[in-house]
Order: sequence, then structure tokens, then C-alpha cells
Amino acid sequence: MDFTHSPRAQEYIERVTAFIDAEIAPREPEYYATLRSQDDRWAVPPMIEELKAKAREQGLWNLFLPDSEHGAGLSVAEYAPLAELMGRYLFAPEVFNCNAPDSGNAEVLLHYGSPEQRERWLRPLLEGRIRSAFCMTEPAVASSDATNMRATAILDGDTVVLNGRKWWSTGIGHPDCRFVIFMGLTDPDAHRHRRHSMVLVPLDAPGVKIERMLPVMGYHDEPYGHGEVSFTDVRLPASAIIGGPGRGFEIAQGRLGPGRIHHCMRLIGMAERALELACRRATERVAFGKPLANLGGNRERIARARIAINQARLQVLHCAWLLDTAGALGAISELSQVKAAVPAMAQEVVDMAIQLHGGAGLSDDVPLAGFLTAARALRMADGPDEVHLGVVARMELGRYRT
Amino acid sequence: MDFTHSPRAQEYIERVTAFIDAEIAPREPEYYATLRSQDDRWAVPPMIEELKAKAREQGLWNLFLPDSEHGAGLSVAEYAPLAELMGRYLFAPEVFNCNAPDSGNAEVLLHYGSPEQRERWLRPLLEGRIRSAFCMTEPAVASSDATNMRATAILDGDTVVLNGRKWWSTGIGHPDCRFVIFMGLTDPDAHRHRRHSMVLVPLDAPGVKIERMLPVMGYHDEPYGHGEVSFTDVRLPASAIIGGPGRGFEIAQGRLGPGRIHHCMRLIGMAERALELACRRATERVAFGKPLANLGGNRERIARARIAINQARLQVLHCAWLLDTAGALGAISELSQVKAAVPAMAQEVVDMAIQLHGGAGLSDDVPLAGFLTAARALRMADGPDEVHLGVVARMELGRYRT
Amino acid sequence: MDFTHSPRAQEYIERVTAFIDAEIAPREPEYYATLRSQDDRWAVPPMIEELKAKAREQGLWNLFLPDSEHGAGLSVAEYAPLAELMGRYLFAPEVFNCNAPDSGNAEVLLHYGSPEQRERWLRPLLEGRIRSAFCMTEPAVASSDATNMRATAILDGDTVVLNGRKWWSTGIGHPDCRFVIFMGLTDPDAHRHRRHSMVLVPLDAPGVKIERMLPVMGYHDEPYGHGEVSFTDVRLPASAIIGGPGRGFEIAQGRLGPGRIHHCMRLIGMAERALELACRRATERVAFGKPLANLGGNRERIARARIAINQARLQVLHCAWLLDTAGALGAISELSQVKAAVPAMAQEVVDMAIQLHGGAGLSDDVPLAGFLTAARALRMADGPDEVHLGVVARMELGRYRT
Amino acid sequence: MDFTHSPRAQEYIERVTAFIDAEIAPREPEYYATLRSQDDRWAVPPMIEELKAKAREQGLWNLFLPDSEHGAGLSVAEYAPLAELMGRYLFAPEVFNCNAPDSGNAEVLLHYGSPEQRERWLRPLLEGRIRSAFCMTEPAVASSDATNMRATAILDGDTVVLNGRKWWSTGIGHPDCRFVIFMGLTDPDAHRHRRHSMVLVPLDAPGVKIERMLPVMGYHDEPYGHGEVSFTDVRLPASAIIGGPGRGFEIAQGRLGPGRIHHCMRLIGMAERALELACRRATERVAFGKPLANLGGNRERIARARIAINQARLQVLHCAWLLDTAGALGAISELSQVKAAVPAMAQEVVDMAIQLHGGAGLSDDVPLAGFLTAARALRMADGPDEVHLGVVARMELGRYRT
Repeated sequence: MDFTHSPRAQEYIERVTAFIDAEIAPREPEYYATLRSQDDRWAVPPMIEELKAKAREQGLWNLFLPDSEHGAGLSVAEYAPLAELMGRYLFAPEVFNCNAPDSGNAEVLLHYGSPEQRERWLRPLLEGRIRSAFCMTEPAVASSDATNMRATAILDGDTVVLNGRKWWSTGIGHPDCRFVIFMGLTDPDAHRHRRHSMVLVPLDAPGVKIERMLPVMGYHDEPYGHGEVSFTDVRLPASAIIGGPGRGFEIAQGRLGPGRIHHCMRLIGMAERALELACRRATERVAFGKPLANLGGNRERIARARIAINQARLQVLHCAWLLDTAGALGAISELSQVKAAVPAMAQEVVDMAIQLHGGAGLSDDVPLAGFLTAARALRMADGPDEVHLGVVARMELGRYRT
Repeated sequence: MDFTHSPRAQEYIERVTAFIDAEIAPREPEYYATLRSQDDRWAVPPMIEELKAKAREQGLWNLFLPDSEHGAGLSVAEYAPLAELMGRYLFAPEVFNCNAPDSGNAEVLLHYGSPEQRERWLRPLLEGRIRSAFCMTEPAVASSDATNMRATAILDGDTVVLNGRKWWSTGIGHPDCRFVIFMGLTDPDAHRHRRHSMVLVPLDAPGVKIERMLPVMGYHDEPYGHGEVSFTDVRLPASAIIGGPGRGFEIAQGRLGPGRIHHCMRLIGMAERALELACRRATERVAFGKPLANLGGNRERIARARIAINQARLQVLHCAWLLDTAGALGAISELSQVKAAVPAMAQEVVDMAIQLHGGAGLSDDVPLAGFLTAARALRMADGPDEVHLGVVARMELGRYRT
Repeated sequence: MDFTHSPRAQEYIERVTAFIDAEIAPREPEYYATLRSQDDRWAVPPMIEELKAKAREQGLWNLFLPDSEHGAGLSVAEYAPLAELMGRYLFAPEVFNCNAPDSGNAEVLLHYGSPEQRERWLRPLLEGRIRSAFCMTEPAVASSDATNMRATAILDGDTVVLNGRKWWSTGIGHPDCRFVIFMGLTDPDAHRHRRHSMVLVPLDAPGVKIERMLPVMGYHDEPYGHGEVSFTDVRLPASAIIGGPGRGFEIAQGRLGPGRIHHCMRLIGMAERALELACRRATERVAFGKPLANLGGNRERIARARIAINQARLQVLHCAWLLDTAGALGAISELSQVKAAVPAMAQEVVDMAIQLHGGAGLSDDVPLAGFLTAARALRMADGPDEVHLGVVARMELGRYRT
Repeated sequence: MDFTHSPRAQEYIERVTAFIDAEIAPREPEYYATLRSQDDRWAVPPMIEELKAKAREQGLWNLFLPDSEHGAGLSVAEYAPLAELMGRYLFAPEVFNCNAPDSGNAEVLLHYGSPEQRERWLRPLLEGRIRSAFCMTEPAVASSDATNMRATAILDGDTVVLNGRKWWSTGIGHPDCRFVIFMGLTDPDAHRHRRHSMVLVPLDAPGVKIERMLPVMGYHDEPYGHGEVSFTDVRLPASAIIGGPGRGFEIAQGRLGPGRIHHCMRLIGMAERALELACRRATERVAFGKPLANLGGNRERIARARIAINQARLQVLHCAWLLDTAGALGAISELSQVKAAVPAMAQEVVDMAIQLHGGAGLSDDVPLAGFLTAARALRMADGPDEVHLGVVARMELGRYRT
């Protein structure tokens, strides 16, 4: 039992902390001011490229990637505290080239992509020169059940033809977005887990159309955004199918695991920053002659938030360690446990921090409303709470089945 | 013990229901489509004036006003089910000229305004020709404690001079907004409840400046909006002081009571509609071979929402009846009880409905994200939950003090 | 909308209040002291008969019974505040001859019993000379699903033969318990709701054996108690079948409705008294230089308890009024709503009051531990929370089924 | 980051598991049957001494004691999984001589006792030949605030004279209880933390009187029990003062820390066993044609329990590791965090398991009602939840104070 981070993780923690303190935290107001004042709300504030260059220069780049040739070569448990630090600022992950869905897409191409795909798409993605999106969820069906999927990826000779409509394709609004990974039904008669394919689709392929950008609680999350995208007779060479036909489900499972825990890591950081803002507000703001901290149940709420964050962090670290030591199959329940618990925890902590801020909490003067939106959305993204609770229960009850 | 609505209320319920079913519900999509497509996001979709004319023609107008000369003359308990019906559509209250803060401002002018004020401002307000705002909350201090207020309304001969900064002035973005009611400190040496004045300020008075419009969870709630407003040496005749100097606190108390319960009535309607949407979704959407209603804890959540709404409605009705029969002083705890309980209930029910909708729930395809924002904001507007809980506890413990 | 009690109810409220204040409240310590000190823990403290005589003399007797010939002739809504008052003292209901399960058994015999049964068993029951029990729940099966029932009541010529094992037969430990109402399967081939019969069984009938008395959270609830009872070839004349064979389910439904709401009424009183004890403690007890009321979140907890009790009371009153005006079939959801909500509310309020009392709260120095046990048990008795939530959800979703 | 137990801990886990599986689990029914059937309810069932002998023989003895001369020499983190295992059976801790309050008293005597005290009292305590109690909490004052303490330990020449009344002295009903550790006020003028003394009092000292045994939710927890004890002019040699006068507070702090985390460790085991019982019930019991696991929200409740237990366990392990590596002063917040969180978690999990068991859950047929009582009591013992939340909040806010 040893709760210390590895020396390598410790060293990265210090460097990422220093970078955030020096470069990101002080420029957060500027970032949002730029975003709001620019004519094109989907333009990327120039400071981002500047920060990316600095981070890359310092070797704080692709930290999420366990592969040490293409990434930092950190274990999941080593990456956890770094992702947490990034989670404190909504635009920080991109600075370190660690943002979703690019990170997950990179892992897919690294493990399943052809040499051509890796050269053509993975390389610029890992260099931060292009962005990407992931097209899985569909508007017309309950996408928590993958067997509902209606989009198709049909083989026709040596081409594959895509049709369907996807939404919540995050990042597709980014001006540098160049490709999406599309999932569709290829062979309805195959085994339930061999029916779907994942296809790498250049965003400018004929037949791909961004129908609209979707708001989340009123936010469009520019310059990333969440798109609804139609695919109409999109014809691509069959080599665009990642890993070959029928491996969509397998790849999705492999992709979603790390993606889910990465989200949870960042949510810990988000909740931690919300608590920090709450504590500062509670000590500085005065009502009825006392700092807010000394009014009503505020101290208890702060204490409960501390407890909830610490419990969640330990659970994420434990799950990360399990992924490192036992693999995805050895952490099925634990991964669903954190996915079911951490976004809800973050939503609650952020909501508490908002309440302590009064009206300011819901405005954009503090980042809390954006945090609440992110946490709320993550109770559905990558599988809703209920589906993950179902997995946990199934594993638990399975121990007693005869 | 009789839970039936009065014949008059029952008749109004039927007429308001019929109006909403015929005129509002079917045009909700059109309303939002117009709002989003128009060049000026702060313009009022033309259908509003059209609907207002129809409602007024049918006598469904100023229903909130117990005064039977200027309004419908309904008791608070009779108005409750009507406000609930309006609460189902965010733009419905204005159609019936029953929206905050105009309704509260109208009551202030009716009870405390001079004949000139009533003629010049109240009449067009009640006719729906102008809109208004209420400027009380301040950005720099905890406004839940009125003694913190920093804005000033200083008498200087027969003029009054206003200085200060207010925010969360709802409705100030409306193109028809013509005046605000401003609250400021007049005499710091007077009794704690006699220090402040309320002043009627034409929006175009020199020195009044809308600094910016504030988002709430990313929403600007156009065309109403929430403004941050500065008042710099705004000089007005002393007759602009409503009811005379030093009555600000008294008027505020009288104004906020009905305002609070009106919000709660509408929130019941909002929660009720959210539950309806949740039930429809739960029966229509299928995952894992079953309608969502038959998955996991969804039925229990629906049942708990039904229970929570019914309890809250009964409490609002009881509080309304108490206001009617015992007056504001006889309902101090009960008013704080509903204000502390109902927005939180609505937030929870709407959050549940969102979860059942998956990603759509957070988009603007259904009204739930807007509902969540409204309910969340009302846990702070007109006094945060904690302040109202404090009132309830004080009254409760007061029964046992020696 | 009128929340005042009827003049008759109001008059009874005053009389019951006066009786409790004068006769029951001051003697509560004596009651428990006697109970604990007597040699036979199942003896009834003599003060009970004395109090019963006084109550009967004052006409405060059988108040639960809407039938005005045999009872007080009060509506359900009129009885509600009286039952609430009785609920403040665990031994009070018996004093007014209003305790479960005798009240429910009396209603069964009144509506379905033969003249002989009414003369032989109902009369002394309503006179408080004998007690009774109800034998429905079985240890071997999930009794929330009545179709699981294994006990049998088989017709054999003009006799009926009972076999089976029941438990949680409350009141069977009382020295005056003389009969039980037993429910068993008569005809497995009949319609699902016509299979069972209810049989009036003298407690001394051969083959009836109290196997043991069951504790609830360590309490045996003497002198009433909860028994596990075996029925082995108990042979009775067929006339012992209440209302004739096959009507068990029908009678149970009719019996359980009022029984459930009566429990909820009493729980309101229990919660109300717990809150009163909590407030007294919070104002009198000092820690860290302040009364407990001024520490941490205690005031918020007190406020939330007040809100929860008031909401629950209104819901119970509304349900009672609905039973009076629309009958049991018009209140199916509402009855399940209160049964699902009120015991859980009471458990929470009492738990809060216990916490404010420190160790004393769990001892028998205050009645809170007994209250917690009672509230907790009622989350299962007469149908567990989950079954009632299921009913509420079914009714709710049913409105949207096509 | 390494979540594996040390080889030594691992080895103990296996041995304790084997012992419990072989000796304790199968004899639990016998233990309670004996306890309930014996004439003297305060007698210790003979199997206990038999089991203690076996455990001692196998070296599974005094595992709680980090001192390797007198105990097993395990770190707190190594002991954690063992205490968890013991927590699954209420009578298991004594079998391994690891039960409260003897374990805490042993630590006090080991660190602060004189050689005579260690020889006369510690030795037989560690050999399991005698039992002891701890007399700190007082009935008349809020004992969560130690400065409220009224009992006195006054020096009079070379004797010390004790007066006062204590309660919740757990274990004082045990027939082998031979001494208590008493805390009283010695010097009211000293520094707040130097006023009190701890005194070792033989139970048969003149003036010591067990006034009564206190029930907890109806349970007396025989043969340990919780006593109310009066001390009237109890005169002892001054050498009975442990560590010398004025060190009571210091010793209490040192004593309560490990005591609190030990309680939490055992509560994890209790919750874990409750979840196991719940899962078994949910798979075996059938209602409405389905196992309970497939009804309503039961699966979600099971999943949430799994998550809550895992989070709590990780937090306890982390706190234990912190105590081992940073000492008590380095774990102030963390210790209060687990004490505030774990009993409440256990209460909730056990309550859920009870509900799944129906009536059986509240009886003594399964150990859940006893578990609920234990968990509920531990939300107050060793400091109520609220005091610990206060500590956590103070530490948290302290980071932002200027």
C-alpha cells in the first residue's frame, strides 16, 4: 500500500503545475475575453497556438499516450494527476495536446490504423496541427445500446459507403478539424460484436455535412463545439476502415475505457478548483456580519465536498492502477464505478460552489457554470450513469449466481 | 378541508388551458426558431404581440393582480393554478402580461406609486405596451443581506441623486423596457428598515448605463436578458421616490412575497411539464429491447418526481391560501418554506427528465436545459435557499425560546 | 381551496389535544417505567385500562371508524389530525381504541363479517375488551407479491382447514388478543383476485401456535409484539370465512387502504414530536459556547424537517380528502404516494432528532429510538416503499400509453 | 502508487480469512442462540473463550497493536484489511483480542502507563483475561465539547478523588470487566488542554456504581453493554493517574485517533457483508415472477452500495497509510473525513440491505438490524459527524485564510 506517485509522475506533476501556474491560470481571463470579443466565435484565440508551442517545447505533450515512442510513455496512474491538473481549466487539455476526442482518436489510430493512416492523420494529430471528431452517437435511437445504431458502413467492392446521421460529435466545429472517426453497421448478420466498422472519414469527403452545432445548456463550447452531422452516400476506399471491417465494437470498447477515466481525472481537477473557489468566496464574502463560511450549513457543505473529492480521486487512482496492472478486462466494474460516480460528484460540488457565489456563479465571471455544464454532460457522454450502474450491479450480482 | 378550486378559478383554469393548448403549445417551436434565426437576437418574435392581443381580448390578462379594478381580482390561491399552467412554457407568462419582474413592479406602483407614476408608467405596463426591470442586487456585496447594499439614493433639495452598480436586472434587455425600479441607501443613520428608498428611473435617464448583459449557464434569455447596470449621478425629481424616502425596505418586503410564490407556482408547472416529457420519452424510447421506463431505476425516479411535485404543489397552494387568509405576516415561514423547497425540487425533477432524454436533454431541441437553468437560478434569485431555510429555522426555534 | 378543518374535526382536535396533554403526555415516563420494571414484560401496564375508560367516557373512542353507529362517524380527512395527535405517543392509539391492527380488523368485520362474527368478535373489539392480530405476511416468500402466498384455507365440506406459517402478526403478544384474521389460498384455479380467503381464527383454536415473538431492531414492542405463527390443520366451520370464500384479496385491498393512511397520519405526529424534541434540545444544549441550534448545519436540518413534515401532512390530508370524495379507486396513486413518502420522511426526521440528542437519542430516555424503529418498519409493513413507487409509476406512465 | 497489501498483511489476510471461515462464520448462529437462551443474558457464551484460545494459538492476537513486543507489530495500513474482516461479525473482534474499547485502553497503558499499571492491568488485558471500559462521555453535557466535562479528578495529597457521572461506557457489562479509564477535571485554571486527567479505576473501587445499562435502539449488546456509571468520592492513590495529572486531553487525542479509524475499518467489513447478504437475497428471492435483483431500482442500489464501500475503503486505507507515514498530526483532516463519512455510508448500505430483506431484515434472523444499530451509534460515538465535518472544514478553509 503506497499512495505516493512515482518519481517520474512526481516530476511531471511539478512541471505541469508550474506551467499552469505560469502560463494558463493567469491567462484564463484573456482567453475567454478573446473568445467573446472576436468576430468569428469559432476562431481559436491565438494564445492557444502560442501555449501549445511552449508546452511542446517543454516536453509536456501527448502525456496521455502510454506509448513512449509517440507519447510520454506514462502509465494510466501516472497520467492521472496530470489530467487532474489540466481539468482545472477547460482549455488546458488542448494546450498539452491531451484533449478529447483527439486523444482517444490518436489511440485508435496508433493501435489499429494502417501505416498510411498513421502517417497521414495520426502524425499531424499528435503534432497538434489538426483536430478530429468522433461520430458514434445518433439522434434517432438510444445510443447507450450500441445495437440500436442505424448508420451504415457498407462494403461495395473495394469501397465502403457510409450513410447515417450522428450527433454530439465534439470538436467538429474546430477550424482545424480534418477528419472524423465514424462508426456504422457493416454486417447485420455477424455476431453482435462483429457487426460494426469504424471508418476514418476526411471532413471534406463528399456527402459529409455538418447540419448544425448543438448547444449544451446554452453553451456551444466554441471553438470545439458539438455537431450534428449527416453522412449521405459517403464513398471511401475500403482501406479507410480502421483495422478492417467488423472491428468497430472491439475498437470502441478499447477506445472508451481510457476516454472514460481521462474524463474522470479531469473532473476531479474541476471539482477541486470549484472547491477552491468556494473556499475563497466563503472566506472573503460577508453577509449578516460574518464570512459566508460561518453561515448556516456552509462549512458542512465544504467538508462534504472535500470528502467526496478525496474519495473520488482515490477511486480514480485505484482504477488507473488496476488498468495498468490488470488490464481493461480486470477493471470492468471499477471503470464503470468511476464513470457512474465521478461526474455526479463533480456536478454536486460545482453546484455547491455556484450557490456560494450567488448570481456570479451562474454567469461567466467565474468558470463554474461552464464546469457544471461539463460535469452534467459527462453524466451522459460515454454512457449514461444508469448504464454504468447496470454494469457494476451485473458484476456484483454475478459473484453470487449459481 | 376542501381541495377544489373555486368556481371562478376553475373557469379560468379551463380558459387558460384552452388558450395554451390552442395558441402557445403548438407555436413553441416557431417561437424559438424565430428567436434563433433573427438578425437581432434581442428582438421580440412578432408572434408575441399577436398572442398578447388575443389573450387580452379573451380577458386572460393581468391575472396575477388581486386588484379587481386593474387586474383579474383573483386571490393568490386562485391565481396559483393559472401561474402553474403558464410555467409550462417559458414565454407564456408575458403573453398573459403576468411575467416577472413586470408583475411585481406593477404591484409596487399600484400600492405605493403616486397618481402621476401610475398614469405615466403603470398604465402602459398593465397594458403590456412597455416592460420594466428591478435593480436591487449588487455585484460587489452579498445582496442576500440587504444591509450590505452600497448603491445610494441621496436627497439633494427636491431632487434625488442615484449612484451605484446593480446586476441581475432581469428584463432590462427587452426592447420595450422603459423604466427600472432602483433601490438605494438614503439615510444610513435611520432604523435598519428605514434607510433605503425605491426610485422609479426612466431607462433613458442620463447616467443610466447597461454595462453588459449577463449569461445564466450560457443562456442570455433573450429578449428579456439580465443586465449589469451602472447609475452615475442619475438626478431625478424627488417625486421619483416611490412612496417617499426610506420606504424601500418595506416595499421590497411587500414586493418580494408575491414574487416568490409566483415563481414557485410557475416552477410547479415547469416540473410538471418536465415529468410529462420524461414519461413520454420513457415510453417511446427503446434501449436493450425495452422502453426506458422498464430499465433500472427509471420508474422509481418517475414516481419520486410525481410525489415531489404533488407535495410541492400542495405546499404552494397552502401558502397561497394562508397569504389570502392570514396575510403576509401570517405566512412568513410558509413563504420561505416554498421558496427554499420548490426551486430545488424543480431542479431535481428537470435534471431527471434531462437524463432520460440523453444528449437531447441538454440541447435546445427540448425545453429542459432552459428549465434547468431557470430552476437553478431561482435557488438564488429573491433570496438563496439558505437564507429562506434560516427564516424557517428561526420561526421554528422561536416557538421554544423562553 | 380551504385548508381549515371542519368544525367537528376542530372540536375533536381540541378534545384529543386536551386529553393527551392532561392524561397521556405526563404519564409517558410512568408507562415505560412500569413496562420495564414489571416481572412479565408482556403484561399491560394498568394505567392503560384506566386511560381507556376515561377516553371512552369522554367519547374519544373508535374515532377511526367512519361508521357513525359503531364509531365516531368522522371522515378520513377529519380523522387525520386526530390520528396525528395520537401518533406522538406510541401507546396513545390504544387508549382511544384506534390502534392497528385492531382498527383494520374492526373495519373488515363491520363490512364483511356475519352477524354472528360481529356480535361475537367485533363488539368486544370495539369496546376495547379484546385485541386481535392480522396474519398475512409469510416468512418463506416475498409477501409484497400476494400471489406468492403459500398458506392455504381449503374447504372441506362445511369446514375450512388452515395450514401455513405467518409472521409479523402484530399485536399477537397482547394478553387480550383473542382472534386473528388469517389469509390463505382457497382456490388456485380461480381468477388471480378470487383465489384467497380471509378466515376469522380464535387464537385458542387447535393447531394455532405462536412459534416465537420477533424483535424489530432489538425491540419486542411489548405488550403488543410481532409473532411468528404456525397454523397446522386448523379446522373451523366454513362460516369462519369472512364474507365467504375467495374474497380475501378484495377484503385485503379494502382493509389495507385505510390502514396505510392511518399509519401515515400517525407518522406525521411522530415526526412532529421528533422535531419538537430536536428544537428543544437544540436550544437548551450548549457546546463550544453556543446552543446546538447555532452550530454547523443544525438550523438548516431543522428547517428541512419542518418543510418535509408540512409537505407530508398536506399530502396525507389531500389523500384523505380524495378517499372521502372519490373513494379508494380515485386515490390509488395518491395512497401509494403517501405510503412511499411518509415513513421515509419520518425516518429521516427522527434520525436527525436522534443525532441532535447524542447518545441519549439512541437510548430509551427519549422516545426517538422507538420512533426510528417504527418508521423504519413502516417502510416495509403494508407494502415496501418500492412496491408503492411501482404503483405510482404505473399510474403516471399509464397516462401516456397509447 | 501501489494498492497491493504488504506480503505480511497479505499473509495475515489469508490466515484471518481462513480462521473466520472455519471458526466464526459457521458458529454465528450458535453464538446468538446461546446468548438468547442462557439464563443470565450477561454471560459470555463459552465458545468465545474457546475461539480466543484458538486464535491466540495461531498468532492471530492483538493484531491492532503496532508495538511488536506486545502486539503483532503491524502498521495501521496492514491492520486495516484485518479489522475489516473482523467487522463482518459483531463478536469477531473479541476473538482476536482486538475489540474496542480494550484495544484503545491497551494502547493508553502501553504508552502512558506506569510499569505497575502495565504489569497489573495491561498484561491480563493483552492476554484476554480481563476486559475494561472507558468513561469519558457524560449525560448532563454535550460531550463532543470536552471543555464541558463536569467530572472531577482532584488531587488531595498523594491521593486523587473522583466524582461525576459517565455514560455510554461500553464493555462495562462484561463479566470480566475489571477496570475503567476515567477522565475528569483536575485543574480548571490550567491551559485548556492541560486541565484533565485520566485515571485507572478498578471497577470494584468503593464509590464506583453502575447505575444502569443503556439500550441502543432496543439492543443492550450483551455481554458487553453500555453503562451509566456514577463515581462518588472514589479515592485512589495519585499513581492511578495515567501519565500524571493534566495529561488527559493529550492521551485522549492519541487514544481516539486509532480508535476512530479502527471503527471505520470494521464498518467497511460490516457494509461489505451487508452488501453480500443483499446480493444473495436479491438473487434468491422472487416477487412478481422475477428475482428481486430485477425489480425497480434494486440493481442501481446494489451498484451504488458497491461504489460507496469501495470509495470508503480506499479512503480508510489512505488515511491509515497517512497515519503510518505522516503521523496523527499529518492526518487530522483525513481522520475526521473517514469518521464523518464511513459510519454514515455503512448506515445507508445496511439500511438498503434491510429493505431487500423485508421484515426479516429488522428481525434478528439476519445480523442486519444489529449492524444498523452499530453504524448509527458510530455516527455519534468518538465525536458526532458534525464535529468531524467541522474539523475538515476548518482545515480546508485554513488553506485560504490570510
